[in-house]
Amino acid sequence: LEFAEFQIDWDRERRTGLPEAALCQGKTPAQIGGIVAAARAKGRRLLLTRLCVAAHAALADEVRDTLDYDPLSATAVFGGEIPVAESGIGIVAAGTSDLTVAREAARTLAFMGHQADIIADVGVAGLWRLTSRLEQLRGFRVLIAVAGMEGALFSVLAGLVEAPVVAVPTSVGYGVAKGGRVALLSALASCAPGVVVVNIDNGFGAAAAAIKMLRVTRV
Amino acid sequence: LEFAEFQIDWDRERRTGLPEAALCQGKTPAQIGGIVAAARAKGRRLLLTRLCVAAHAALADEVRDTLDYDPLSATAVFGGEIPVAESGIGIVAAGTSDLTVAREAARTLAFMGHQADIIADVGVAGLWRLTSRLEQLRGFRVLIAVAGMEGALFSVLAGLVEAPVVAVPTSVGYGVAKGGRVALLSALASCAPGVVVVNIDNGFGAAAAAIKMLRVTRV
Amino acid sequence: LEFAEFQIDWDRERRTGLPEAALCQGKTPAQIGGIVAAARAKGRRLLLTRLCVAAHAALADEVRDTLDYDPLSATAVFGGEIPVAESGIGIVAAGTSDLTVAREAARTLAFMGHQADIIADVGVAGLWRLTSRLEQLRGFRVLIAVAGMEGALFSVLAGLVEAPVVAVPTSVGYGVAKGGRVALLSALASCAPGVVVVNIDNGFGAAAAAIKMLRVTRV
Amino acid sequence: LEFAEFQIDWDRERRTGLPEAALCQGKTPAQIGGIVAAARAKGRRLLLTRLCVAAHAALADEVRDTLDYDPLSATAVFGGEIPVAESGIGIVAAGTSDLTVAREAARTLAFMGHQADIIADVGVAGLWRLTSRLEQLRGFRVLIAVAGMEGALFSVLAGLVEAPVVAVPTSVGYGVAKGGRVALLSALASCAPGVVVVNIDNGFGAAAAAIKMLRVTRV
Amino acid sequence: LEFAEFQIDWDRERRTGLPEAALCQGKTPAQIGGIVAAARAKGRRLLLTRLCVAAHAALADEVRDTLDYDPLSATAVFGGEIPVAESGIGIVAAGTSDLTVAREAARTLAFMGHQADIIADVGVAGLWRLTSRLEQLRGFRVLIAVAGMEGALFSVLAGLVEAPVVAVPTSVGYGVAKGGRVALLSALASCAPGVVVVNIDNGFGAAAAAIKMLRVTRV
Amino acid sequence: LEFAEFQIDWDRERRTGLPEAALCQGKTPAQIGGIVAAARAKGRRLLLTRLCVAAHAALADEVRDTLDYDPLSATAVFGGEIPVAESGIGIVAAGTSDLTVAREAARTLAFMGHQADIIADVGVAGLWRLTSRLEQLRGFRVLIAVAGMEGALFSVLAGLVEAPVVAVPTSVGYGVAKGGRVALLSALASCAPGVVVVNIDNGFGAAAAAIKMLRVTRV
Amino acid sequence: LEFAEFQIDWDRERRTGLPEAALCQGKTPAQIGGIVAAARAKGRRLLLTRLCVAAHAALADEVRDTLDYDPLSATAVFGGEIPVAESGIGIVAAGTSDLTVAREAARTLAFMGHQADIIADVGVAGLWRLTSRLEQLRGFRVLIAVAGMEGALFSVLAGLVEAPVVAVPTSVGYGVAKGGRVALLSALASCAPGVVVVNIDNGFGAAAAAIKMLRVTRV
Amino acid sequence: LEFAEFQIDWDRERRTGLPEAALCQGKTPAQIGGIVAAARAKGRRLLLTRLCVAAHAALADEVRDTLDYDPLSATAVFGGEIPVAESGIGIVAAGTSDLTVAREAARTLAFMGHQADIIADVGVAGLWRLTSRLEQLRGFRVLIAVAGMEGALFSVLAGLVEAPVVAVPTSVGYGVAKGGRVALLSALASCAPGVVVVNIDNGFGAAAAAIKMLRVTRV
Repeated sequence: LEFAEFQIDWDRERRTGLPEAALCQGKTPAQIGGIVAAARAKGRRLLLTRLCVAAHAALADEVRDTLDYDPLSATAVFGGEIPVAESGIGIVAAGTSDLTVAREAARTLAFMGHQADIIADVGVAGLWRLTSRLEQLRGFRVLIAVAGMEGALFSVLAGLVEAPVVAVPTSVGYGVAKGGRVALLSALASCAPGVVVVNIDNGFGAAAAAIKMLRVTRV
Repeated sequence: LEFAEFQIDWDRERRTGLPEAALCQGKTPAQIGGIVAAARAKGRRLLLTRLCVAAHAALADEVRDTLDYDPLSATAVFGGEIPVAESGIGIVAAGTSDLTVAREAARTLAFMGHQADIIADVGVAGLWRLTSRLEQLRGFRVLIAVAGMEGALFSVLAGLVEAPVVAVPTSVGYGVAKGGRVALLSALASCAPGVVVVNIDNGFGAAAAAIKMLRVTRV
Repeated sequence: LEFAEFQIDWDRERRTGLPEAALCQGKTPAQIGGIVAAARAKGRRLLLTRLCVAAHAALADEVRDTLDYDPLSATAVFGGEIPVAESGIGIVAAGTSDLTVAREAARTLAFMGHQADIIADVGVAGLWRLTSRLEQLRGFRVLIAVAGMEGALFSVLAGLVEAPVVAVPTSVGYGVAKGGRVALLSALASCAPGVVVVNIDNGFGAAAAAIKMLRVTRV
Repeated sequence: LEFAEFQIDWDRERRTGLPEAALCQGKTPAQIGGIVAAARAKGRRLLLTRLCVAAHAALADEVRDTLDYDPLSATAVFGGEIPVAESGIGIVAAGTSDLTVAREAARTLAFMGHQADIIADVGVAGLWRLTSRLEQLRGFRVLIAVAGMEGALFSVLAGLVEAPVVAVPTSVGYGVAKGGRVALLSALASCAPGVVVVNIDNGFGAAAAAIKMLRVTRV
Repeated sequence: LEFAEFQIDWDRERRTGLPEAALCQGKTPAQIGGIVAAARAKGRRLLLTRLCVAAHAALADEVRDTLDYDPLSATAVFGGEIPVAESGIGIVAAGTSDLTVAREAARTLAFMGHQADIIADVGVAGLWRLTSRLEQLRGFRVLIAVAGMEGALFSVLAGLVEAPVVAVPTSVGYGVAKGGRVALLSALASCAPGVVVVNIDNGFGAAAAAIKMLRVTRV
Repeated sequence: LEFAEFQIDWDRERRTGLPEAALCQGKTPAQIGGIVAAARAKGRRLLLTRLCVAAHAALADEVRDTLDYDPLSATAVFGGEIPVAESGIGIVAAGTSDLTVAREAARTLAFMGHQADIIADVGVAGLWRLTSRLEQLRGFRVLIAVAGMEGALFSVLAGLVEAPVVAVPTSVGYGVAKGGRVALLSALASCAPGVVVVNIDNGFGAAAAAIKMLRVTRV
Repeated sequence: LEFAEFQIDWDRERRTGLPEAALCQGKTPAQIGGIVAAARAKGRRLLLTRLCVAAHAALADEVRDTLDYDPLSATAVFGGEIPVAESGIGIVAAGTSDLTVAREAARTLAFMGHQADIIADVGVAGLWRLTSRLEQLRGFRVLIAVAGMEGALFSVLAGLVEAPVVAVPTSVGYGVAKGGRVALLSALASCAPGVVVVNIDNGFGAAAAAIKMLRVTRV
Repeated sequence: LEFAEFQIDWDRERRTGLPEAALCQGKTPAQIGGIVAAARAKGRRLLLTRLCVAAHAALADEVRDTLDYDPLSATAVFGGEIPVAESGIGIVAAGTSDLTVAREAARTLAFMGHQADIIADVGVAGLWRLTSRLEQLRGFRVLIAVAGMEGALFSVLAGLVEAPVVAVPTSVGYGVAKGGRVALLSALASCAPGVVVVNIDNGFGAAAAAIKMLRVTRV
């Protein structure tokens, strides 16, 4: 069984403005090592996502040593940092437990050169935490909202600001909320127009969408 | 096939404080007529719920003429009104479409002697509609919250008031929200403690629970 | 039972850049008439969505006569047209059956002053229909993609263009695809980064999001 | 990435009568430690829920030593006990396996100053276990019913007593009952009016609701 | 397209003790007519189930005239009655709305020569309706229990009697209970051992199973 | 709103060996008429599927008159018949109610020039109906199996023959089987290797797959 | 928190003919130990189910030593064996993996004094394994059928024999069959009348039902 | 409890052209050992599937030593290799993570004497990876397509080639895509006719179907 296990879409950035990233969940250490080697050979930087602590530890030493790893967000960067600039993207997280996903978004943005603020622990059960920061929130050009459980944050936030709101439901919760289904459905059924949604726990995708939105320049 | 089709639980009010009501959905006109006749024979008042316009029209004339019917809430009362008194129960409805369910709750409360206010169209996409009435909302001893779509109202409201919040998800919505599932799950997964939930569109059950709560007197 | 059935969020446009629209599904003719009357009294234009042919016919004559109604998209406009300008928003529909939703998006955009092109019947089973128009597709600043069945269009399109792609799954399909669930899940699970999703059949929401994106100007 | 990871809603008790509690599931040991430190700095007591044995063991020693931990209910209290008084709240558990959730409710009540009795192992398959205690059950002002599997207890109990019944479905069960879905649906679909429901395994929420109900004093 | 549309399993009674019946839902009037004609040609009696009022009316006159039709249970018998004998099978129905299914069971039993009693409207919300008839219930050799909504009847009944309990969940209910899913799951997850379950609304199948059980004679 | 509503994939037959067909469900009469007109203009034959009796009746007369319509399978053919030849494809239907789907497959095959036999009413509850025809069944080169309810036919048949078995689950059934989900899952979970599955009620797709299989010639 | 953790329903056998058994899943070692102690104190035998190998190992030595444990079925018996007699109950298992559940049924029967044969590995993909044993199968008075995956065994078997068939779906399978859902649905939707169903993996319940059926003696 | 735990269907190859394979998931090491011993006694080769690394390690040494094991695909072969010949079957995998399933298919084909190429990492987000190999893809007589996440590959591929496409959805993905459900539904709802589907992760079944298709020789 001889064949090329992967053919990285190096051309993606040219076509879509977003470079390919490596989703590590479900890949063997050898496969991840191979992808990193391909990036090195090509002289490209590479973002690795969903690389959990155990998977990171299982990598070959020579692979792991080349990575800048952040365990909370389970992301790693190959190829070093680039300078970041303030982007106008704000990341709002409902609870402390949502920070892993919020950080995946922030790390993705930083990989692409965008600095983004995280505003954490502003769940709607204590509405003042949100309304007291309204000025700040209205200053962002794009908002990424990260919430699990019932995801009421998405609708409340979108009713208060002009910026597009990218909702990232998280798998934080138990009982009916286990796995993030309720937050996802809440975001999709939002009574506030203009909320757009990505997959559960997909901080990477939200960051990608936010970057695309920054480029929609009105001529 | 000879047998008694129904044996009404006339004793229920003594045991639980709530009289039996007749859920008309799924019953034939003859069966509904028989239940009303039993109430008349027993000298009891009776509440009929989920009696849609077509089912009401299909009743025998002598049955229909004895009923006080409200088409919007699909409820009917046999046996006349009783005086109502202000109860301290407030009914909050997220949208105009939720009024059918809100009225089922109000009609049930009135049947039991409780006057309740309805505060309509206060969905969280326009948060001011809710916050501008905070004083009024905080004055209620029990709140029934009625909402479809993503049901964010439940969490926001419960984070603002001291009264118990009985959430009634409604089947208002389309796409993922069709049938009321998202509002139901949102209520159950609420990040605001103390929200309790009844079945989708169950304004009757919410009113019954609210009445029970009024009776929880601290000695 | 005396209370105000609706309190329109006239302030929404100032806060979020998007005026409130009236979702007619689940509302009685009298309720819709009341909302239109409120708009007239306030001197505001109003968009009505999900007003099916039967509901439109059931409106009072004096209400219906003031509306510009489009049966295919089930939308109506009160208050007349405003001039539209080319917006840079493209609407791509996978099949002929998806046009009802595509038109809801187009009508919403027109109500807000944006002219948008519809590119219809470009399902991926005949990939040439999409690839032969790549130039045109790459010219848009925001793309709304409308597809039912398995929704493969979302991923293929997003892999080819730089613009953000707002996916609108539609309820077109049968068997497992009935109700739009598969297209929705496909959009959320897309392997192409940067796809964002709205509720099934929610052409209105996609248009609202697209308008928000147009306003994300990089200073 | 510098930002405040949590901003505790210390004001919640004043607004809603219930202090914020820390849901530990999904939080890192460092995050939990930070929350406890914030409580200490503020001079507040704090309830921690869903702190499983492994998570408790992973806490820093100086955090763990300040906590009163109960492994069966996975709850911990920071800040010491307060005197408890008999509250009139009864907790009824269908099976031995439901005791973890019943104890979460009891611990929450105790944290708030309420003593509550647990009546365990009264599943309806042996109806006498319930009916033989009817007198005792009718003496409570609020009942918390805890059951997994098919949750028939909720309906049977609510048909026998005047007090409000807060149903807590539990994840006890296998096959179709796995995860608590059947007990949840049973509670929501109960034929006995006045049953209200909280999320699966949410003993904390049931206690919070019960406390709110105790405060509904008829003047 | 020439072929035999049906080949009735006339041999089934010999093999399994139960004759084939014709499920009419989803069949055209011509197909139903053909099956009846085949029975006539073969000189066999035939039971038709799920023949709703409209489908019965759409049959050719010469077919319809040969049938003994019962609209409430949507069953018809071709070939006339046979003498029935007391069977020891009891049918217990939770609510009036469950009678359509209970009667399908009773009609099936009668078709096979078994007389069965129906005990109606004994939902557990009024437990006395069940417990006051305990003597009668314990006299049956097989019990068919018919219930919708949350189906608590199944567990309560099975905990009280020695006979096997065949649970028939019904599609009676709304919200989460719509379509009978909750009653079905409740029956399957019952905490009372020895409950066996058939498909939703399958009164025919329950009767078939009960007849099989009568034949399990201990030698 | 000016644009081409459809662009038929006339090239599909060259690429894939299968011409495009028009799925009529969800299309307006005007849209169907336009597609037929396009076929006429192009001089092509066209198959229309899921054209129910009401939709067929709603077509413009000049469109309807050009179609060869079969109401049972809800299919229509534009452009006349072509000669058919025996194909070696057998269609096996579990019940009489499954014939609508079986005929959709047969009509699709005939449109493509393939004559196929239908073997009807061979559900496994009467196994002899299947085993007595084993010789005939083993003579086919490809088998299309059509079944609703629990779909046991798929596994039994695939365990007896050498030909590939294309399973078409149908929406025939009630209760848990409503909509065809159980038959679909049964086909996918089959313990007999080599069963392949298409969407519920998708007789057209099964025929298309069968034709593709006929072309897999071993050189 | 002082209360009795369990009150065993020792009276159950008198009422229902079946003694209470202890479902060990979800119980702590201390709770299981307490239940065994209660049985010893009462002088009763006791069956323990779903006692997995790890839970058995975690029991206190003095508890574990009193139990007759069978790891494959995860059952244990306290109080010693009783003589068993041939019962006429046959247990048919579709695959080798279904034997854990089949043995739970056999162990339950043995605990109650009934000897039962297991006929293993007779899945319908090799139909001859079933048909070659038809004589033997027809000799049983009650059949327990145990199958996972698509559960076609239930329908095929029930179409061949006169005895009642108790279907036990198992969680054997992967993909759509994971957890036993497909086998469960197949059993419920069976086209063969007279199949009755218990919960997934519930060999205990099937044995309980079979014993009840043996007692249905026709006088 | 004495009985034969398995009776292998050695006759299957004669009937269906495919030998029985042993699905190891859910079997004990002793059971797997017994099956291998039966094959040795019978002088047959045997394929074992879903034998994960831990299960392989748990086998008795004398069993394990006779197996040719491949950890990535979790397959083992007993009885040695046979010569393979080029088959005309191509296996296309969307991502690197799908290779475990693709290899299960390839190993199954090799066991049966068929050499198959794997074309890996051709997800549609980088469409060029697919279109640049169109010539190669069109050269295959049967295509097995392996994809997780949203499974758009199935539709795109089937629209480009003449060969039958056997879709194997994989459990690769997270959030809504977890477990493979979205890829499965996408394959079933595909807008490209002629796609046939097997269970999630069922590379074995896809290979079995492909082999059956190779035998459909047009005479």
